Amino acid sequence: MEFVKNTWYPVTWSNEVDRTLTRHMIANEPVVVFRRQDGSVAALHDACPHRLAPLSLGTLIDDAIECGYHGMTFDCSGQCIRIPGQEVIPKNATVRAYPIEERYGLVWIWLGDPKQADISKMFNVPQYGQEGWHAVQGGVLRIECNYLSLVENLLDPAHVTFVHKSTLGTPAGASIPVNNDYGDNSISVWRWIPDAPPIPLFANFAKMTGQVDRWHYYDYTPPCFFDIDMGTCATGSIKDPEMRHTGVQMHSCHVLTPVDDRTVLQYWFHVRNFRVDEPEIDQELNAALEFAFKEDKIILERIQQEQERDPNAKQITLGIDAAPRRMHKMVQKLIQEERQHLNTPANAGAAT
Amino acid sequence: MEFVKNTWYPVTWSNEVDRTLTRHMIANEPVVVFRRQDGSVAALHDACPHRLAPLSLGTLIDDAIECGYHGMTFDCSGQCIRIPGQEVIPKNATVRAYPIEERYGLVWIWLGDPKQADISKMFNVPQYGQEGWHAVQGGVLRIECNYLSLVENLLDPAHVTFVHKSTLGTPAGASIPVNNDYGDNSISVWRWIPDAPPIPLFANFAKMTGQVDRWHYYDYTPPCFFDIDMGTCATGSIKDPEMRHTGVQMHSCHVLTPVDDRTVLQYWFHVRNFRVDEPEIDQELNAALEFAFKEDKIILERIQQEQERDPNAKQITLGIDAAPRRMHKMVQKLIQEERQHLNTPANAGAAT
Amino acid sequence: MEFVKNTWYPVTWSNEVDRTLTRHMIANEPVVVFRRQDGSVAALHDACPHRLAPLSLGTLIDDAIECGYHGMTFDCSGQCIRIPGQEVIPKNATVRAYPIEERYGLVWIWLGDPKQADISKMFNVPQYGQEGWHAVQGGVLRIECNYLSLVENLLDPAHVTFVHKSTLGTPAGASIPVNNDYGDNSISVWRWIPDAPPIPLFANFAKMTGQVDRWHYYDYTPPCFFDIDMGTCATGSIKDPEMRHTGVQMHSCHVLTPVDDRTVLQYWFHVRNFRVDEPEIDQELNAALEFAFKEDKIILERIQQEQERDPNAKQITLGIDAAPRRMHKMVQKLIQEERQHLNTPANAGAAT
Repeated sequence: MEFVKNTWYPVTWSNEVDRTLTRHMIANEPVVVFRRQDGSVAALHDACPHRLAPLSLGTLIDDAIECGYHGMTFDCSGQCIRIPGQEVIPKNATVRAYPIEERYGLVWIWLGDPKQADISKMFNVPQYGQEGWHAVQGGVLRIECNYLSLVENLLDPAHVTFVHKSTLGTPAGASIPVNNDYGDNSISVWRWIPDAPPIPLFANFAKMTGQVDRWHYYDYTPPCFFDIDMGTCATGSIKDPEMRHTGVQMHSCHVLTPVDDRTVLQYWFHVRNFRVDEPEIDQELNAALEFAFKEDKIILERIQQEQERDPNAKQITLGIDAAPRRMHKMVQKLIQEERQHLNTPANAGAAT
Repeated sequence: MEFVKNTWYPVTWSNEVDRTLTRHMIANEPVVVFRRQDGSVAALHDACPHRLAPLSLGTLIDDAIECGYHGMTFDCSGQCIRIPGQEVIPKNATVRAYPIEERYGLVWIWLGDPKQADISKMFNVPQYGQEGWHAVQGGVLRIECNYLSLVENLLDPAHVTFVHKSTLGTPAGASIPVNNDYGDNSISVWRWIPDAPPIPLFANFAKMTGQVDRWHYYDYTPPCFFDIDMGTCATGSIKDPEMRHTGVQMHSCHVLTPVDDRTVLQYWFHVRNFRVDEPEIDQELNAALEFAFKEDKIILERIQQEQERDPNAKQITLGIDAAPRRMHKMVQKLIQEERQHLNTPANAGAAT
Repeated sequence: MEFVKNTWYPVTWSNEVDRTLTRHMIANEPVVVFRRQDGSVAALHDACPHRLAPLSLGTLIDDAIECGYHGMTFDCSGQCIRIPGQEVIPKNATVRAYPIEERYGLVWIWLGDPKQADISKMFNVPQYGQEGWHAVQGGVLRIECNYLSLVENLLDPAHVTFVHKSTLGTPAGASIPVNNDYGDNSISVWRWIPDAPPIPLFANFAKMTGQVDRWHYYDYTPPCFFDIDMGTCATGSIKDPEMRHTGVQMHSCHVLTPVDDRTVLQYWFHVRNFRVDEPEIDQELNAALEFAFKEDKIILERIQQEQERDPNAKQITLGIDAAPRRMHKMVQKLIQEERQHLNTPANAGAAT
């Protein structure tokens, strides 16, 4: 399958990258990542152009990688700077180098045309690092399913009642319809559940009791950015949705890396406005969230297996599928645009 | 490959089915099975028509299954009776329901056209439950081979001498030709071995000593029913084959479930007319039989691997292959008839 | 892929073959091997022509194999000599028998046209068994890569500096060009590294100290024979390369068996002219060599994976690839010649 390339995908957590050469698969591309001597992160295609040996098996010398098979050495721009036993370095002795950014505790890679690498297209979490908000590094879950199945799942409040009974859902939500707002390149799926018990997560961690008003806003930017705004306030206490930050609020951020056609990495972290001075609860909160995400993993992997077992199985469409269907169109449009851009005379072959 | 659908396949032992939703694969179809509140067994296609989540991951509520992903709920007829968040239930919101029978301690499923489900086509073991006979639930063996290889094996007395040296065979049998009787939809392969030592199984369990007359009747009904009548009497004591029940006799019953193209489940049980009041020997006898069946499993799985490794390998035909060849024709004829029936105008699309 | 068939491939070590029927896969052909009563080794195609049961599951009776399924019995020429329950043995009741030789502690098989089996095409190690030389059985390494990748590796002194830093290489070698001598059906890749420290292996086992002259001669005969002559002498002490045996010398012999398209067995042994009366160092020396060969295994398996992941990946050619490129042509020529020979009218169908 084709993937969107002109976007930022998370590669790994920033604090995992050091002088060790590590291999990562992103959208079917193998990438070797390391930290330069100046502290910045470099990423090269992880196959020596000579015999395809992974460069991650090689040796880091200053900021260049010496291939572990015959010693061809590549600098951070992907240019070969040494071929042992040979004076002339052929023009095609190069590997791809990728634009890299670090933000929100993650290392992000731009797989597409480097000339179009654009930091304004980075995932945006305005609260991150702001006063009154506490940011928490979460974890990463490897799910053996197509990444778009996970995107559907994260656009879909309807599953919460059934998949996350003990963590994120309560029966009260099941029958309340969701609202879908569509932008040019964004989807917001949201609903308010008035005058209901708090979800178990907020009851436990935000110490909510009694009846509350609850909201979920699933804010999606294709192909792989999610800011899920979950919050709670005493029933009736917030009249204007713009004032949600005055309630108990958590932005649960999910950014996905398609590994290949049937594997996705789900990176997650959150910022919250409650118990901001109590980092000691972070670990317990993360564990509760991870427990919930693993509930999705079980379902999504079984669906993947069923789709592979019977690729022609018919699926029916329900009302709750409106946002997922729009999502598929948006992602396809991005892929189409990249394909057309590559086929214009000026760009043919630019970013293969 | 195509499978016969208008037949009864064993799904599992009756005493394994309760209120737990369990998934079974039968002829490439996933089926979820559970026991209704009235004690009868229900079976539905194990994939929600919305996103293909296995219904067996869902929740049983009374006699309906609530899908574990979005809560679509299906009754035992396969009709959707609830879609959370949606009033109108689309006409195509259904899953297949399958006719089920319980007999001989097994749950049987009819995968074909439900209108043709016919209890008279059920495997028939007249002695089961009759006075003077003791019925014993056996076991199930999963064999990684095409089910027709196991059918060939169970139609084939010639292998017993070589595969089952220590259990079912003796050298005496090797050179005695078998008789094949063919019905319209049945095969009987049989031989008498006169004046020979008893096979180890009867020597041990029926306490036969000295010389005996022995018989084997392999009675087969396509595609998957076997009644193997094995017996022994003092040499010369039974003149009329119809009087075999006056000797020491065991009906070893084998009913097969093709799981997919390369996997079969062999369910087996027996009825016997010796030591009928000694259930304490059942376990030991079952263990001896299972030991013998596992000898076949080893051979059959290796043959499967060899056939997959070299699908074009030529195979020669021997005299002992007459019944297996006739069997293949009978099974193909059943499949042809089902295909033609489906293509008649009245039935087109009836039982896909 | 096609393999060269008219050659000798090692099957296993001679001391591993006894009266036990053992199965080996060689160039996608399954072979059953055993030792005859007269001490010689026999090899048959390991699939009964009736139902493809591996004959290696059967029983050895004198020098014939009785199939474990129905008792068909084959002598060492592959002729069926018994079919239980059947008088007439069909003409096509045969399995292939293969020419076998034992040499250098190994059992060798000729997969091609038996009429062309030619001991003069056997791997040749003149020093083996001669006075002044000590022969040591090595080991066998299973590498999950195409055998030609390993052939390339064994023709390639350039990788030694980078893959075998601690065992076979020193930095001194990296920049010295290699010489390639091509015969009609042989390649010799060699270089002398003058006035350098000894490689770790010789420093440890031949107790070389100070500066030395070193040589490597990689002598290859397609498709799978390698005699790697590694040696060392005090700097300047050998003027004539023909006198290498007066230095410290080891012939490291590698003979390969392609198992299938992505698996190769590397059999290795050596003869040496130092410490010939000290077999107690054999084990330690073998361990050191095996350690080095496993360094190649890691690289080669990762390259195989990368080639499979992206079969269309472009590879660039370096100066060090001259011998490997010539090797590929030689092997293809052998395969072509065999194909043409088979297609001549006199030989059509002779050795399928």
